[in-house]
Amino acid sequence: MWAASPAFRRQLVLLRSLLPSPDPSSVAGFPPSCPSCSSFLRVRANHAMAASAGTVYEADAEAVVRRITPPLDRARHKGQAGKVAVIGGCREYTGAPYFAAISALKVGADLSHVFCTKDAATVIKSYSPELIVHPILEESYSVRDDERASVSSKILTEVAKWMERFDCIVVGPGLGRDLFLLDCVSNIMRHARQANIPTVVDGDGLFLVTNSLSLVEGNPLAILTPNVYEYKRLVQKVLNCDVDEETASEQLITLCQKIGDVTIMQKGKSDVISDGKTVTQVSTFGSPRRCGGQGDILSGSVAVFASWAQHFVLTNEQPTEKRVNPMTLGCIAGSLLLRKAASYAFEKNKRSTVTSDIIEFLGKSLEDICPAEH
Amino acid sequence: MWAASPAFRRQLVLLRSLLPSPDPSSVAGFPPSCPSCSSFLRVRANHAMAASAGTVYEADAEAVVRRITPPLDRARHKGQAGKVAVIGGCREYTGAPYFAAISALKVGADLSHVFCTKDAATVIKSYSPELIVHPILEESYSVRDDERASVSSKILTEVAKWMERFDCIVVGPGLGRDLFLLDCVSNIMRHARQANIPTVVDGDGLFLVTNSLSLVEGNPLAILTPNVYEYKRLVQKVLNCDVDEETASEQLITLCQKIGDVTIMQKGKSDVISDGKTVTQVSTFGSPRRCGGQGDILSGSVAVFASWAQHFVLTNEQPTEKRVNPMTLGCIAGSLLLRKAASYAFEKNKRSTVTSDIIEFLGKSLEDICPAEH
Repeated sequence: MWAASPAFRRQLVLLRSLLPSPDPSSVAGFPPSCPSCSSFLRVRANHAMAASAGTVYEADAEAVVRRITPPLDRARHKGQAGKVAVIGGCREYTGAPYFAAISALKVGADLSHVFCTKDAATVIKSYSPELIVHPILEESYSVRDDERASVSSKILTEVAKWMERFDCIVVGPGLGRDLFLLDCVSNIMRHARQANIPTVVDGDGLFLVTNSLSLVEGNPLAILTPNVYEYKRLVQKVLNCDVDEETASEQLITLCQKIGDVTIMQKGKSDVISDGKTVTQVSTFGSPRRCGGQGDILSGSVAVFASWAQHFVLTNEQPTEKRVNPMTLGCIAGSLLLRKAASYAFEKNKRSTVTSDIIEFLGKSLEDICPAEH
Repeated sequence: MWAASPAFRRQLVLLRSLLPSPDPSSVAGFPPSCPSCSSFLRVRANHAMAASAGTVYEADAEAVVRRITPPLDRARHKGQAGKVAVIGGCREYTGAPYFAAISALKVGADLSHVFCTKDAATVIKSYSPELIVHPILEESYSVRDDERASVSSKILTEVAKWMERFDCIVVGPGLGRDLFLLDCVSNIMRHARQANIPTVVDGDGLFLVTNSLSLVEGNPLAILTPNVYEYKRLVQKVLNCDVDEETASEQLITLCQKIGDVTIMQKGKSDVISDGKTVTQVSTFGSPRRCGGQGDILSGSVAVFASWAQHFVLTNEQPTEKRVNPMTLGCIAGSLLLRKAASYAFEKNKRSTVTSDIIEFLGKSLEDICPAEH
């Protein structure tokens, strides 16, 4: 079982008090007015040792959010706060890619794109004029057998010309399971990897990846966000055994190591995150409502935070041995934000809370943690 | 006439006071803090006798809602609070299936699907990203005669692969009367019955069922929700006579018995519910507005409550002779919730109240009766 007890929290506080307090102003890009910015990293330095014993620490998720959220700088231009793309949306599913893409904008990205099928595009466009929706994917039913190679190549060319502009992509929300479409998306994932674009994989993207592990093997910029069922399938496929709750953290570390370099956020009562070296969890209570679509909010939010974290780590030089995995930071921040927003939405809407109600509170939740300054 | 007089209400109170008070905490899954949880069942135990004399009791609908609404458990996963599907939506009608499906979510289901024609799907999707809309039904105009058998078979295969996942389906909102489409829907209803899925039949679904009684004959998981005109046609078809207001409750019981095992909720000034054994009514005043679409809210709400009631009855063992029909409980709860929401909506919007205004108050109405706890 994951260790989330008060004893561990006290241990966390103790660890902090024992460590010397660094000068916050020494970290570029973060104002000295964020006193807790540095604490998370200090705890992280002690993490590898702890995780080896199967211990899971509660992340200081608010500190992470403050740490990686970039200041709003008046001199910045459109796009500098993040450009995200969601690869998903087919004849059957249109809500999921919309939720992921609009969440990215509501967290603070400047631009949010969706790459989906023609059928889905009109609908997703109609949900919101804020999104840029590209109707370029195709499902088997709309492509003749003899056209497949050329259509697949055309799709990759279309996406590739945009790829360099993105700070992160999300693969999977409402993708469906059409084999031709998944084959095209595999090509897109390979291209994103070559271009070093962080990639969050969720929903049907996890179905694809579980059956084609090479798509993420050894990719330190890949984040997988399985729910309980998707995690079970992944463990069965990769470790050839069932999920064992008694050794859950060791199993998660082994899973990451076996796939190689990826970060996995196992969603559940607590969201448990590992990159194969450390295990951290976020267990802030969100909402008891389990309406479909919350995973899509999470994937869109994680995409933004992961790109911010990557920027932060790249622009704040630290010794390699102390460098924090930005993908892990992105997961921690995304998890906390969804949970806070879900809590606000439930407080207001109770049992009738739906996904759109939660998205409405992403902004307030971020503002609570990390107030935007004029 | 249905008996809704103060005299009957007093009789209800009298009945309660005469019966011994059971220990509410003895029923699993319901907190002892719901003092009125048990009263409805006590009254129900005396019901068969009363109904045989043509008496109609006012249901203690608030107690029913409290009784069957599942607690919000933090350990639950997506889908465990209910997965509902609406079969309806054609070239002509798109509002009705949307109202039914979104109402199911707002009452508290986790997932809500719509199976409709291609023409309807784009529109229904665009109403809300919360719904999962499957564009798989076909009308005669879009299918050549020689394709009918194969298209019909394909539609059934598509729906069948989802069916096991649903806790309840609603057949009829905005279905239209195209003969080929109704033929396909008949196949879906037969499949749902084989899979033991509770089925609420409303609107054009009642047109279908009135002309093909075998679709619901002897199905204890079928709920028919006719309005005054649909009820009249049903009585004429099944009993071969006109509606007789003097012997209304006996006629309703006879109708249920003649069709066999089904539950019927006759909508009107009061909603009168029978499963062929007992007759109960809900006469809480809702709203004087009669805008179209309220029946769709009701069918979606009844679907959720019926699935909750079925789960409650199955997981709380009681002697068979005291077992309450969960379909009846679902009707009572759905009826009360619509009436309360309609009342709130009318208070706010008066003559300009429309169906969406009522849906807005489903959450508050449920919260009034059965507050969600963290």
